[in-house]
Amino acid sequence: MSGHPEAEIYHRQGMGKSAGMGQRPALVMVDFVVGFADPAHFGGGNIAPAIAQTVKLLAFARAHRWPVAHTRVVYAEDGSDAGVFTLKAPSLLKLTEHSPLSQIVPELTPVAGEHIVRKQGASGFFDTNLASWLRYQGADTLVVTGCTTSGCVRATVVDSLQHNFRTIVATDCVGDRAIGPHEANLFDMGQKYADLMTRAEIEAAAG
Amino acid sequence: MSGHPEAEIYHRQGMGKSAGMGQRPALVMVDFVVGFADPAHFGGGNIAPAIAQTVKLLAFARAHRWPVAHTRVVYAEDGSDAGVFTLKAPSLLKLTEHSPLSQIVPELTPVAGEHIVRKQGASGFFDTNLASWLRYQGADTLVVTGCTTSGCVRATVVDSLQHNFRTIVATDCVGDRAIGPHEANLFDMGQKYADLMTRAEIEAAAG
Amino acid sequence: MSGHPEAEIYHRQGMGKSAGMGQRPALVMVDFVVGFADPAHFGGGNIAPAIAQTVKLLAFARAHRWPVAHTRVVYAEDGSDAGVFTLKAPSLLKLTEHSPLSQIVPELTPVAGEHIVRKQGASGFFDTNLASWLRYQGADTLVVTGCTTSGCVRATVVDSLQHNFRTIVATDCVGDRAIGPHEANLFDMGQKYADLMTRAEIEAAAG
Amino acid sequence: MSGHPEAEIYHRQGMGKSAGMGQRPALVMVDFVVGFADPAHFGGGNIAPAIAQTVKLLAFARAHRWPVAHTRVVYAEDGSDAGVFTLKAPSLLKLTEHSPLSQIVPELTPVAGEHIVRKQGASGFFDTNLASWLRYQGADTLVVTGCTTSGCVRATVVDSLQHNFRTIVATDCVGDRAIGPHEANLFDMGQKYADLMTRAEIEAAAG
Repeated sequence: MSGHPEAEIYHRQGMGKSAGMGQRPALVMVDFVVGFADPAHFGGGNIAPAIAQTVKLLAFARAHRWPVAHTRVVYAEDGSDAGVFTLKAPSLLKLTEHSPLSQIVPELTPVAGEHIVRKQGASGFFDTNLASWLRYQGADTLVVTGCTTSGCVRATVVDSLQHNFRTIVATDCVGDRAIGPHEANLFDMGQKYADLMTRAEIEAAAG
Repeated sequence: MSGHPEAEIYHRQGMGKSAGMGQRPALVMVDFVVGFADPAHFGGGNIAPAIAQTVKLLAFARAHRWPVAHTRVVYAEDGSDAGVFTLKAPSLLKLTEHSPLSQIVPELTPVAGEHIVRKQGASGFFDTNLASWLRYQGADTLVVTGCTTSGCVRATVVDSLQHNFRTIVATDCVGDRAIGPHEANLFDMGQKYADLMTRAEIEAAAG
Repeated sequence: MSGHPEAEIYHRQGMGKSAGMGQRPALVMVDFVVGFADPAHFGGGNIAPAIAQTVKLLAFARAHRWPVAHTRVVYAEDGSDAGVFTLKAPSLLKLTEHSPLSQIVPELTPVAGEHIVRKQGASGFFDTNLASWLRYQGADTLVVTGCTTSGCVRATVVDSLQHNFRTIVATDCVGDRAIGPHEANLFDMGQKYADLMTRAEIEAAAG
Repeated sequence: MSGHPEAEIYHRQGMGKSAGMGQRPALVMVDFVVGFADPAHFGGGNIAPAIAQTVKLLAFARAHRWPVAHTRVVYAEDGSDAGVFTLKAPSLLKLTEHSPLSQIVPELTPVAGEHIVRKQGASGFFDTNLASWLRYQGADTLVVTGCTTSGCVRATVVDSLQHNFRTIVATDCVGDRAIGPHEANLFDMGQKYADLMTRAEIEAAAG
């Protein structure tokens, strides 16, 4: 990200420091569901390779017994929990409990003990028990993967920081339908909210 | 924003609809404090003209008796509430209750009855009573101004939507130290979280 | 409640005022599920008559098109979201999505458009989207029924007040396994958090 | 509490288990401010002896380097953050930043590094950064003292449990203006939300 034309401004104002990795990382996979992997619905761009890399990071997390959480967007069948977000993006309402579109992609199928967070908002923390759950697991650091980088990943990362988890974006494990917003949001997150590390760097640091 | 090279992807996936303005708008001014107006600290870019436009919008809001809230970043003098955000950006800790840097800019000085929200996070809603306060005022719509577009404005906008306020970004009343992130975040917000309107358009719609 | 031996202390200190009913009431039924109606599990006391009265209040609410919400305690089948509450009361973990014990009692079966809140905590608001949902419905007042008075009803009432909903406890529509705590908590709520009204009084005030 | 006439019901339904003390306790003192120590305002009952015991527990906590937090009720001078709570109890609005009534009692004056939480609600967690702050300190257990037992202590305890802190009420360090509600709320908390321990028991367990 050092190549960003305006990075110098942030450096001069004292941003972009590293918060580092704590003693007990957890892994969250944001919205890696069928509908966000499929360009005909909400997917496309570099989401498929992000899933492929996350398969490897999930195996690492399981081997190291990290707490693991998956988020899904789930709206009620009768639309009773529609809101302003579904005014902006009405097709979200298709993501109901049993819709094929809202199922976690097969490569990342949860195993027993992994926490599945149903949400209606952008952030995996908003109006969910993700923060409370992570506390009970003793996590102090959150490694974030998922899609989209410019949407639910970013919103989850901002909340993770605000909840005082050291927050790491696994840069090759997040993806977006559109590459411009993907890059722009990685820049923002790296300057203000999270450390940016590749999967390999995360595994090396935690191993 | 229609000129964004990737806007077509969002259009095809059903995003970027308008949520509109409700019956009872409120105005929030995010972090228009001395330190964010000053390029020697956290300011620069187009923040000064955003303040100038916000002076006019605030006058309109007061004339129409909208609920009005201001946010400030305020950390304890002894640093006791430092956290992960101040690891990423340590100079935030300078923004204490009585620091000149954390005072609202003189042009926007609050009057009695306006709510002043002290916060440590990025979003004006996170760990504050802004949502509860807006409910008591009967607000259903939030018009957001402030700085920085790519930081605390964006975080506040995402939470506003998640709290189910119809959310409007006053595009000429938000500013950022760096123009690339300013533009990129307006695009993201317009596609997913907020309606983008100029001050003049907001006043025409609400008048 | 005026008969409480210590009521005079509260009166002298200026507590126990009425907050009144606003323009747009909503109804919430807290945890009226099979396992809380059954004395062999979490039920007993005066919960059965509270359900019988709530049947009537629900009919009134539906006729007047109030927003209506039901809460259920729902834990994951694999116990992955166990926490401190389930250390205090381990049998809560039996209340899974498809357990007969966690189903809303047949007399109060939700209809389309009514919001069903799944929760793991005591309060219907904690880590759920109840507050956001009520905002989108335009509610300014919450009428609370359910069980137990000394448990999840009280926790929901305190949060309702804190979220700035005018809060009314329907005194004959709340019940508890034990009558001493039922009475003690009605007293506390009436002094500090809610107006206490019978079903008939609520219907007369809103009619 | 075993003497409570209805305790057997709770025992039979599997409540009242112990959650125990974790690895890293923190201490919170709820609303031990001048106005709540003074019977002419919000005080009376057994609040004075609770403060005297808390002086000793605070010394212990400081000696063992526990994270320490104090809560205060603080409303804006202009009443701009009044809400439903101040309809129920209007005299709360007297508790402004500089009012003598809202100052922490001299015996418990905070020292540098202790977190002071300003709140408008009942719970020390509601719309505050207490949970985020405790996470950053690594706390997994919260020892609660303060007043009143039936008001802000209870509300704080319920939220502490919901945030997944193991929660301990220091029974001789909490007080109330009225003894009936004090006893009734200790019973409720012991059955559902917290372990009840005297100061001496807490110090022995943590020492």
